Amino acid sequence: MRVIVVGATGTIGSAVVTALSVRHDVVKVGHTGGAFHVDLGSPDSITRLFRAIGAFDALVSTAGVAKLASLDELKDADYQLGLSNKLMGQVNLVRVGRQFINDRGSFTLTSGVLSQEPMKGSASISMVNAGLEGFVRAAALELPRGIRVNVVSPPWVTETLIALKMDPARGMPATIVAQAYLASVEGAATGQTIDPRKLAAE
Amino acid sequence: MRVIVVGATGTIGSAVVTALSVRHDVVKVGHTGGAFHVDLGSPDSITRLFRAIGAFDALVSTAGVAKLASLDELKDADYQLGLSNKLMGQVNLVRVGRQFINDRGSFTLTSGVLSQEPMKGSASISMVNAGLEGFVRAAALELPRGIRVNVVSPPWVTETLIALKMDPARGMPATIVAQAYLASVEGAATGQTIDPRKLAAE
Repeated sequence: MRVIVVGATGTIGSAVVTALSVRHDVVKVGHTGGAFHVDLGSPDSITRLFRAIGAFDALVSTAGVAKLASLDELKDADYQLGLSNKLMGQVNLVRVGRQFINDRGSFTLTSGVLSQEPMKGSASISMVNAGLEGFVRAAALELPRGIRVNVVSPPWVTETLIALKMDPARGMPATIVAQAYLASVEGAATGQTIDPRKLAAE
Repeated sequence: MRVIVVGATGTIGSAVVTALSVRHDVVKVGHTGGAFHVDLGSPDSITRLFRAIGAFDALVSTAGVAKLASLDELKDADYQLGLSNKLMGQVNLVRVGRQFINDRGSFTLTSGVLSQEPMKGSASISMVNAGLEGFVRAAALELPRGIRVNVVSPPWVTETLIALKMDPARGMPATIVAQAYLASVEGAATGQTIDPRKLAAE
């Protein structure tokens, strides 16, 4: 399969690229790195991306920005960032990409554990992540030609926790998280929120 | 208690006003009707509303607009309407209102059954409703002074189904749905998504 990975240079994205590359032809997309570039906050940029890449069989997005900050600190612009970038940016990958994707193709987006397991500071991120999961449940009912859409809700990733000088013991290595994306791309599920912790426990 | 009801003239809102009025002093707010007016899509309008009303003990919102339309028909502006009105409008009622609410006060917002039980045409609404539930789970962790926040996820309301010439048998009367809002205002729950069907079955 020809698989686009948006966010290919990120911690999870690069692990997904490695996992997919064993069996698939991967097209790497980054904000500034990768073979192609996209600004998720810009619908025009997304349209230009798909026109440049052409037909494909699957798209994985591990991209999108939203702000972690206390309820007191979060400003209007911080909420808008999450809504226009991580939420609508990924929604628009599906809305625009479905015109270019091959029959029986799939989209796999990324939300995150804070959707269902919030923490102080996650009001905007929890909102955005849960919104993505709601969109995916509904959009799956309407995609034509056997096209599927899922969202992976990753737990904290070990590499991220180390970078943030937090306890890595509560994290999951990116290589294990990547298996959830592989399951979405190669499996038959649609409309699902995939939790890599449940998948790893099976 | 002094309880603000935003959306007081709507189908659910007017039933909530009736239920609350037995024991509480209700301040009715509508888009054009009610004692006070607000445009949920405008943060300035929300700030003016709270300045005009002053201190209060609870706020219930049964307001907010989002578009039901197929994935093919939903335009950028349709998604933005739901995000700026039903989602951020209600989020902003909490963000601004918490500066005016009394100790141990509560906010009760409205999502809807399409969050978890989507149908064709609900991509934008399911996204918005799920986003509200995610925000409420997270914001509840940070509200000071014993302030609570919940969201009621109403099923289809009988009166609405009749108005839409749909089968009313699958709906719940607004008076029963209103009990879920009363439970949120008078109870101790916070961060919860309250399903009136589960409450009625208890």
